[in-house]
Amino acid sequence: MPHEDHPTSTVNAVEEHEAKDRVAEIFADIKATKNLDFVPRFWRVIATNPVQLDLVWTTLKTLMHPEAVGRTAKLDAATREMVALAVSATNACPYCINSHTAALRKLGIDEEALGEVMAIAGLFNMTNALASGYQIEPDVRPPH
Amino acid sequence: MPHEDHPTSTVNAVEEHEAKDRVAEIFADIKATKNLDFVPRFWRVIATNPVQLDLVWTTLKTLMHPEAVGRTAKLDAATREMVALAVSATNACPYCINSHTAALRKLGIDEEALGEVMAIAGLFNMTNALASGYQIEPDVRPPH
Amino acid sequence: MPHEDHPTSTVNAVEEHEAKDRVAEIFADIKATKNLDFVPRFWRVIATNPVQLDLVWTTLKTLMHPEAVGRTAKLDAATREMVALAVSATNACPYCINSHTAALRKLGIDEEALGEVMAIAGLFNMTNALASGYQIEPDVRPPH
Amino acid sequence: MPHEDHPTSTVNAVEEHEAKDRVAEIFADIKATKNLDFVPRFWRVIATNPVQLDLVWTTLKTLMHPEAVGRTAKLDAATREMVALAVSATNACPYCINSHTAALRKLGIDEEALGEVMAIAGLFNMTNALASGYQIEPDVRPPH
Amino acid sequence: MPHEDHPTSTVNAVEEHEAKDRVAEIFADIKATKNLDFVPRFWRVIATNPVQLDLVWTTLKTLMHPEAVGRTAKLDAATREMVALAVSATNACPYCINSHTAALRKLGIDEEALGEVMAIAGLFNMTNALASGYQIEPDVRPPH
Amino acid sequence: MPHEDHPTSTVNAVEEHEAKDRVAEIFADIKATKNLDFVPRFWRVIATNPVQLDLVWTTLKTLMHPEAVGRTAKLDAATREMVALAVSATNACPYCINSHTAALRKLGIDEEALGEVMAIAGLFNMTNALASGYQIEPDVRPPH
Repeated sequence: MPHEDHPTSTVNAVEEHEAKDRVAEIFADIKATKNLDFVPRFWRVIATNPVQLDLVWTTLKTLMHPEAVGRTAKLDAATREMVALAVSATNACPYCINSHTAALRKLGIDEEALGEVMAIAGLFNMTNALASGYQIEPDVRPPH
Repeated sequence: MPHEDHPTSTVNAVEEHEAKDRVAEIFADIKATKNLDFVPRFWRVIATNPVQLDLVWTTLKTLMHPEAVGRTAKLDAATREMVALAVSATNACPYCINSHTAALRKLGIDEEALGEVMAIAGLFNMTNALASGYQIEPDVRPPH
Repeated sequence: MPHEDHPTSTVNAVEEHEAKDRVAEIFADIKATKNLDFVPRFWRVIATNPVQLDLVWTTLKTLMHPEAVGRTAKLDAATREMVALAVSATNACPYCINSHTAALRKLGIDEEALGEVMAIAGLFNMTNALASGYQIEPDVRPPH
Repeated sequence: MPHEDHPTSTVNAVEEHEAKDRVAEIFADIKATKNLDFVPRFWRVIATNPVQLDLVWTTLKTLMHPEAVGRTAKLDAATREMVALAVSATNACPYCINSHTAALRKLGIDEEALGEVMAIAGLFNMTNALASGYQIEPDVRPPH
Repeated sequence: MPHEDHPTSTVNAVEEHEAKDRVAEIFADIKATKNLDFVPRFWRVIATNPVQLDLVWTTLKTLMHPEAVGRTAKLDAATREMVALAVSATNACPYCINSHTAALRKLGIDEEALGEVMAIAGLFNMTNALASGYQIEPDVRPPH
Repeated sequence: MPHEDHPTSTVNAVEEHEAKDRVAEIFADIKATKNLDFVPRFWRVIATNPVQLDLVWTTLKTLMHPEAVGRTAKLDAATREMVALAVSATNACPYCINSHTAALRKLGIDEEALGEVMAIAGLFNMTNALASGYQIEPDVRPPH
């Protein structure tokens, strides 16, 4: 059974047992770093181009799992996921919204706090449209 | 001198000395709540429709200045501004980017932390394009 | 049966019989203002943060149901919904597109007129990409 | 003097006296249809590829100047420009925002009505982010 | 059986056997030009406004099927579809992503090459957010 | 003279003579890889967070300068830059549009070909809005 019966992306995701070499290494690293017992479909889909998998995983691991690369982050895990969710809501990306909402719940964020993130993301989508739509120039450059 | 010499928006911003009634009240509230000695151009521009000014200010004051309305927020001020900046960067809104960057600096956020917000916002603009561009369906719904 | 069997959002929508206090009041106001016998899922979802529900409903009620707040609007109901649909099509928001298309049909807009809204929204998504993509500066500021 | 001294786009706009054949014809048609004594920079820039100029002008003339092609439009001129402005504000396109704001002023739309268009465009950028960000499924398909 | 049993758009797509006059002509032209034995739903939906159908088909036929209008294109078919896919991924349009991915496969583009298009589209969605989010001004205007 | 007199971003770009350690190495690599005698402002700005600089440069170098990392790309340099320009036009990012337009000119792409890229990017921004705005479901999944 090499492939999923019901395709859920425009390409066939790489199955875990099909992964070889660098792809297999990264799949193992994803499971270890994220403490999961499966490789999420996102990573199995972009693995159809191994160079892409390597670049995106390296970037995400470094920024979102700083402890796994021995880095000290300035932002805590919940703040990082809130930024991720706000961007994903703005871009209307279902997979990403789902994944970052799940991550925030795992971190103990309740629905009221989630609502605050969403309300703030919504508010600034509104003010962005107004400031751009009226072509309002900045009052002053931020202090340097 | 009723108007600015150099227009910097598609409509003439309401000058502070022109403001009357509800607009004057809101202008005073903006300066008091934000501890500013002038009304930023954004508010003076949307004041050309006083109903709009009232709705946007009420929303922003409630969400971004919770203490001013006796509300206890779940997110702290820096996290709120980081969400605001991430949305504004995603939408490419110059006025908003400027304003939220300035707010983060006032809150003591340095350039390295600012870079972390930007890097994370950038990363998820990338993964959003990938997840949407491959039409990847969620692995699982977030826990309810 | 406190919750829906088939989740259709990342949080559990508030059921009408669960609503209390300000949320219950707003749910009743939504049904009265919109002349509906149920509360649409959008409002039940954002009700998971009651502050958010209050701010968004106040804004939408004031702008889209001006008669309900004793306001005289400059734009008629069909024009308001056309603007809403054009924004929602540009942002690719399924819930919103559905809801504003249904509202336009209720107002008697036929498929040919709907096609005109869509064609114009499509056209300016095209010219926006061209004007931005060539970085064309305005010929002249709008008259002040 | 074949070119502008101060470039204001990524390519050199075609000057009116340089236009030949089909480009010259379209430039004349733009001035006649829009009752202008110059060709706006947008059209002179996209004229660097004459096929593009022809396609975009034909589409815009048909949809936005229906009387010039003997067509009866369902939407009136102000509604068409309001849809155009709402899309342009959502996409943050300075040239387009400027041009459609100017068109609305020419049609007699005052700043209060303009503010209503902007407030509604802003509102639905907010609700779009919320409906997408919570992945809210439609209550019901629009009536067919 | 005048209509589809399961609506898959906000309006009823025009069935091929319902098409008349200019719509029937364009449907036939779409099948001939694209070498298909059915009219894709996109065209049947926008046919609910025949003027829209005519404008969009003329534009797409001219740009994407240059040989059918006796035009010599500068870009080859695969490059044109890659640009189309990159735009559609950026805008998160499921129908369009599907259709342009299928077109690229028909042209012999494999999953590794597809991954390169996606990786590059993803990368520039990231750098766009960074360059806009930091408001970085161009180093220099492109050479004219 | 440690800093630029006229700030052109929300943070102070790192001057080349200020760069140290990994930042200095990357600045040298950028100049060598891109055959430039200066470091473009984009890289000097994101260098305010060295981790960000490293991740973005590694990704861009690998995808856009494959020969520099010993990789064989599937897409040629002009196609890669066309995808980059189409994404940047869709996102309305001035710095990026400028930079990719300049890169295409360096590769010998003339204004007519540039116009073809722009026309196609514009067209699919239009059809994306239509397909999303009518919520058109795909005819069929792409072949797997």
